[in-house]
Amino acid sequence: MPQSLKTTILVIGGAEDKVHGREILQTFFNRSGGKDGRIAIIPSASREPVAIGDRYRYIFEDMGAKAVQVLDIRDRSQGEDPIWQTYLEGCTGVFMTGGDQLRLCGLLADTPLMEKILLQVQLGQITLAGTSAGAAVMGHHMIAGGGSGESPNRSLVDLTTGLGILPQLIVDQHFNNRNRIARLLSAIACHPDRLGMGVDEDTCAMYEGDGTIQVLGKGNVTIIDPGELSHTNEPYVSASDPLSLFGLQVHILTHGDRYNLNTRNIVPPEERVAV
Amino acid sequence: MPQSLKTTILVIGGAEDKVHGREILQTFFNRSGGKDGRIAIIPSASREPVAIGDRYRYIFEDMGAKAVQVLDIRDRSQGEDPIWQTYLEGCTGVFMTGGDQLRLCGLLADTPLMEKILLQVQLGQITLAGTSAGAAVMGHHMIAGGGSGESPNRSLVDLTTGLGILPQLIVDQHFNNRNRIARLLSAIACHPDRLGMGVDEDTCAMYEGDGTIQVLGKGNVTIIDPGELSHTNEPYVSASDPLSLFGLQVHILTHGDRYNLNTRNIVPPEERVAV
Repeated sequence: MPQSLKTTILVIGGAEDKVHGREILQTFFNRSGGKDGRIAIIPSASREPVAIGDRYRYIFEDMGAKAVQVLDIRDRSQGEDPIWQTYLEGCTGVFMTGGDQLRLCGLLADTPLMEKILLQVQLGQITLAGTSAGAAVMGHHMIAGGGSGESPNRSLVDLTTGLGILPQLIVDQHFNNRNRIARLLSAIACHPDRLGMGVDEDTCAMYEGDGTIQVLGKGNVTIIDPGELSHTNEPYVSASDPLSLFGLQVHILTHGDRYNLNTRNIVPPEERVAV
Repeated sequence: MPQSLKTTILVIGGAEDKVHGREILQTFFNRSGGKDGRIAIIPSASREPVAIGDRYRYIFEDMGAKAVQVLDIRDRSQGEDPIWQTYLEGCTGVFMTGGDQLRLCGLLADTPLMEKILLQVQLGQITLAGTSAGAAVMGHHMIAGGGSGESPNRSLVDLTTGLGILPQLIVDQHFNNRNRIARLLSAIACHPDRLGMGVDEDTCAMYEGDGTIQVLGKGNVTIIDPGELSHTNEPYVSASDPLSLFGLQVHILTHGDRYNLNTRNIVPPEERVAV
């Protein structure tokens, strides 16, 4: 059975290219063992799981994967079904589609299936990817929804608990495309011990076991680091009052840029490595 | 003739309260000498200068200003008319309305009238305010227009030359309301020797002669400080490619918060003073 050499997690901002160069999906495929790969697709975020599952299945089959299976989980009890867990044993890649992140968490959080996936990811046996809702669930804290066109304020963002795959992050997706920086800042004000990560459409933050992320695709990955926050008025103001946040570090990354989530430092461009 | 004690410039993000508490307009009025004040309104950014000029005239008359005059300049030659310059001699406040910042600059930049206003502001003889377009013109570099919903990139923002009243700033207005952070970041990538300042609607950054701004009103003033920028791909990418910006400092300020534009430091909350 082919195995990944190290932990790889692709956090994709949604609307990734499925037709032309397919850089992000191709990278997931390659990191999942390429033509020796066995890929599981989890379409559970979507209310049209068959259609979206099949769409990705065709793509990975077209790339030449040895096996592709849609894990069409629509009920928490399915997460305990030994069939899926057995299938996972031989898997090299798991792809979580878009849809509604609350639905995805509701179906998968704390199930034996999800626990197994997390373990295998940590062991570097499985490459994991999530796009859109599948990216939103990555952190311990999760943005379930929110607004834009307002000053950052607590009521601008709906926060709940995610799958905790990369617990130090609060992820937002479709980021610049849907003008979501104010809601991510609002989330970070509530949890300044985390790191905010906004991922644009057709863009991916590829996390590797050494703590670095590397940017793939067309847009930006925006890092909001409140590590040196010197002052905030949160939680002293009411939920709809605008927030003060002094001393945020913000990094805007593009294709090839690398950032270390553990040290919270940019990897200088001269130290970049090929994907 | 009553005089301001020190230089005061109000940079207002547009849509300031004109009906209820009128905090920002009342502060401008007070800083312009209150009931002893003589106020000039410059409506030249607007294509409806009579209507907008009169609207502000009624407000300041209602507050009790000794004299309010609309300087309805529609032609650059009027900026050389001695009548306006003589009127300015006795003025204690000048208010620039919203409209189109390109129009305002086209009519006023480098005219004897504008030079005189700038001199009197520097001498602390006149309190100056600009709202919306009247705020956009404050910097040396000016945002004339732009888009949102994209990764920051050079083609997202139209840059030209402003009135240079606070030359170290690039000002954007209606800031969170119209999701303009990406275009301000794009502008800062082009001019990392400047400081980006985004002002929300019904919000004001009040600059004082000592270099500090203080926030008035309902929303945020967002400061983007590229002083410690460690890397950018600008100008090595094409105009529509997303930008990399590593190491931005971002401060999000609300009512009462103070920031020193010269030292680029927050004024700690305990050192705040009443307006």
